[in-house]
Amino acid sequence: MSSTPETGEDPEAAPPGYRTAESMAGEEAVTGFVDSLDPVGGHLADLVIETVFDKLYRRPGLSHPEREMVTLAVLAALGDTESQLTLHLGIAHRLGIAPSKVIEIFAHTSAYAGFPRALNAVETAKQFYGELGVLPLAQNQQAR
Amino acid sequence: MSSTPETGEDPEAAPPGYRTAESMAGEEAVTGFVDSLDPVGGHLADLVIETVFDKLYRRPGLSHPEREMVTLAVLAALGDTESQLTLHLGIAHRLGIAPSKVIEIFAHTSAYAGFPRALNAVETAKQFYGELGVLPLAQNQQAR
Amino acid sequence: MSSTPETGEDPEAAPPGYRTAESMAGEEAVTGFVDSLDPVGGHLADLVIETVFDKLYRRPGLSHPEREMVTLAVLAALGDTESQLTLHLGIAHRLGIAPSKVIEIFAHTSAYAGFPRALNAVETAKQFYGELGVLPLAQNQQAR
Amino acid sequence: MSSTPETGEDPEAAPPGYRTAESMAGEEAVTGFVDSLDPVGGHLADLVIETVFDKLYRRPGLSHPEREMVTLAVLAALGDTESQLTLHLGIAHRLGIAPSKVIEIFAHTSAYAGFPRALNAVETAKQFYGELGVLPLAQNQQAR
Amino acid sequence: MSSTPETGEDPEAAPPGYRTAESMAGEEAVTGFVDSLDPVGGHLADLVIETVFDKLYRRPGLSHPEREMVTLAVLAALGDTESQLTLHLGIAHRLGIAPSKVIEIFAHTSAYAGFPRALNAVETAKQFYGELGVLPLAQNQQAR
Amino acid sequence: MSSTPETGEDPEAAPPGYRTAESMAGEEAVTGFVDSLDPVGGHLADLVIETVFDKLYRRPGLSHPEREMVTLAVLAALGDTESQLTLHLGIAHRLGIAPSKVIEIFAHTSAYAGFPRALNAVETAKQFYGELGVLPLAQNQQAR
Repeated sequence: MSSTPETGEDPEAAPPGYRTAESMAGEEAVTGFVDSLDPVGGHLADLVIETVFDKLYRRPGLSHPEREMVTLAVLAALGDTESQLTLHLGIAHRLGIAPSKVIEIFAHTSAYAGFPRALNAVETAKQFYGELGVLPLAQNQQAR
Repeated sequence: MSSTPETGEDPEAAPPGYRTAESMAGEEAVTGFVDSLDPVGGHLADLVIETVFDKLYRRPGLSHPEREMVTLAVLAALGDTESQLTLHLGIAHRLGIAPSKVIEIFAHTSAYAGFPRALNAVETAKQFYGELGVLPLAQNQQAR
Repeated sequence: MSSTPETGEDPEAAPPGYRTAESMAGEEAVTGFVDSLDPVGGHLADLVIETVFDKLYRRPGLSHPEREMVTLAVLAALGDTESQLTLHLGIAHRLGIAPSKVIEIFAHTSAYAGFPRALNAVETAKQFYGELGVLPLAQNQQAR
Repeated sequence: MSSTPETGEDPEAAPPGYRTAESMAGEEAVTGFVDSLDPVGGHLADLVIETVFDKLYRRPGLSHPEREMVTLAVLAALGDTESQLTLHLGIAHRLGIAPSKVIEIFAHTSAYAGFPRALNAVETAKQFYGELGVLPLAQNQQAR
Repeated sequence: MSSTPETGEDPEAAPPGYRTAESMAGEEAVTGFVDSLDPVGGHLADLVIETVFDKLYRRPGLSHPEREMVTLAVLAALGDTESQLTLHLGIAHRLGIAPSKVIEIFAHTSAYAGFPRALNAVETAKQFYGELGVLPLAQNQQAR
Repeated sequence: MSSTPETGEDPEAAPPGYRTAESMAGEEAVTGFVDSLDPVGGHLADLVIETVFDKLYRRPGLSHPEREMVTLAVLAALGDTESQLTLHLGIAHRLGIAPSKVIEIFAHTSAYAGFPRALNAVETAKQFYGELGVLPLAQNQQAR
């Protein structure tokens, strides 16, 4: 990854967005994401990181927690997104979005995307928060 | 879950629909469903049970087996619904819908939702009926 | 479309299923369907007619009204199927499926595919039945 | 719609949620929604209003603007939701969500649901805000 | 859009990809695309053009006609993509992909995404080629 | 599966397409596919094989590698198609489509179907090529 001083541009350099991604998701999560595609999909990893964390997350108009809420809602609605949901549950947690709020987002999607999508997302969240050791939620975090 | 005699209403009571759900799916299946979301998604479980089994299944216009056929068809068409399909395969079986009829429903969806959705649903059904011990189907239940 | 007497087979002949399609949907609807693709998609029309009306509708295990119910449910759940829904609303009507039953099918899909899909399907049905002149439904056909 | 004084319950009464819906979307929008389904889908309208505006919007955990953001994101991601998007663009506007923020939500969905879904949603928003007379947006509301 | 000579970089400049887009789709089509979002979605137009025509179309591994085939197949399979399909039908035509080949692509998607998606795409293609004045196709371009 | 010499037709015979399927996917893959549905979905297996390998793959207008590219793109875009993708990755490999080209197809779908669909498909491909023992790809096959 040696830079090319003449142009100041390094064709081998990681594209912009990796630093933002690491600060939001944690180094371990970004490394895990890149490894999950290695050695066949490195350029897709670059495109994802650049588009999401350089092009979109750095834009004004929505705060990072708001972008994360939108991300979680859309991933839940799409279905077949368990690994992406798990990654973004981690980002949401680091941003301080309460588990009960995340569950509420998933439940809200049920009206538009149907119950199965919402139920799958809640099960993924239960798994994630369970592994994080934050379950059961404190009384004031309980859903029902 | 003590009731409030003055009003006859109990804010902690399970919402209507649980009894219908249990009579249709069996107590074990409903408990399994609720447990799969516990302790984060209790209110989503309540909303699902109430909407599906109190609001929809109790309406006139479609018999329970007809509603179940619609449910199975839609779950197959949506994809990423394996756990929901398994639950409703159980309801369909308790309602007396023959396995060969269920397979026929899934095969029929292929024209509209494509083969992959139909194939995944048939594999889920094969798994369900295998665990139920009803395979191979009797001669007059064979598909081909 | 001259037949080849030697083999009794006509490579130009319409594939099987067109007669079944016409008896179920009416000649006008089938002609309209074929014309909507002409002159670019004749072979797709053939494949659709053959698969749906020769391969699937002629199979045992589901009655024609039951297949139509499955079809309507899946088309509603998929979205972006207005013209296909209109065609199958016509088939359902010719098979004697009551409008109130069709609406009930669409409403039932909302639990699994979300409200927007169900709402769009009901609006398409409203349009279809309005043009057919059967609205308002008789008292015992009213939904609410 | 005469009430039944003995029980204090009126089987013909509009279900809870209509008042919340009207305060959020405006009477005209709710009437338009109900009329779009009349006379075939009254009970589906009731179920939608009750589920969305009584069961979901009244729950704690997400503010109304946050629920609206989730709704807009999911509707954009699903596709074939133009009329539902238009209704919720109206609610979002009444809640004070800035047009530029709404566009930002739609653009953000593109990473997860693809560009076509985001583009269609932005075109629907452009149409909505154009009819509302708020275009062009003020300088500090401009996207680029 | 005055450039900033000191840095050689112009923050107001159109992002890379516009030139490629114009050479592939024609200036008129790109202008139409940008106008369809103006004045609310300029930054989304930029992101689309940059991602598709700078990041993806310029990559090795697939020829432009191959990328276009993939694009058409995916747009057909997704549904609710009529305007995007029309734009890409134009690009495909400029790349010399025969109408009969495009129809064949759409027909092929039917096995995986179901008939309605394929039928809608063929109808969009029929409309596009009709307006282009290339229908009926020459004998050796006929599908059936 | 004894044939009926009088008519030369055997109602028990495997439908056309199985031979094409075996030559394309390999006997083992076809057997695996049929077994995955046995003993409940034999007729769906027949319909799939006949439609895909007799009706579609034998049509003119697209070469087999081109059909496979379309198939891979659509399966990636649909989601929840891991087992179908694995089968078609095998066909693509036997047809000589390079792994790097397959990855490029999946990456290209991301613009239209979103990143999660493309990422899941690349992970499935990584798994497939890993088990095939062709990873890491030769230098000139590397993506980045």
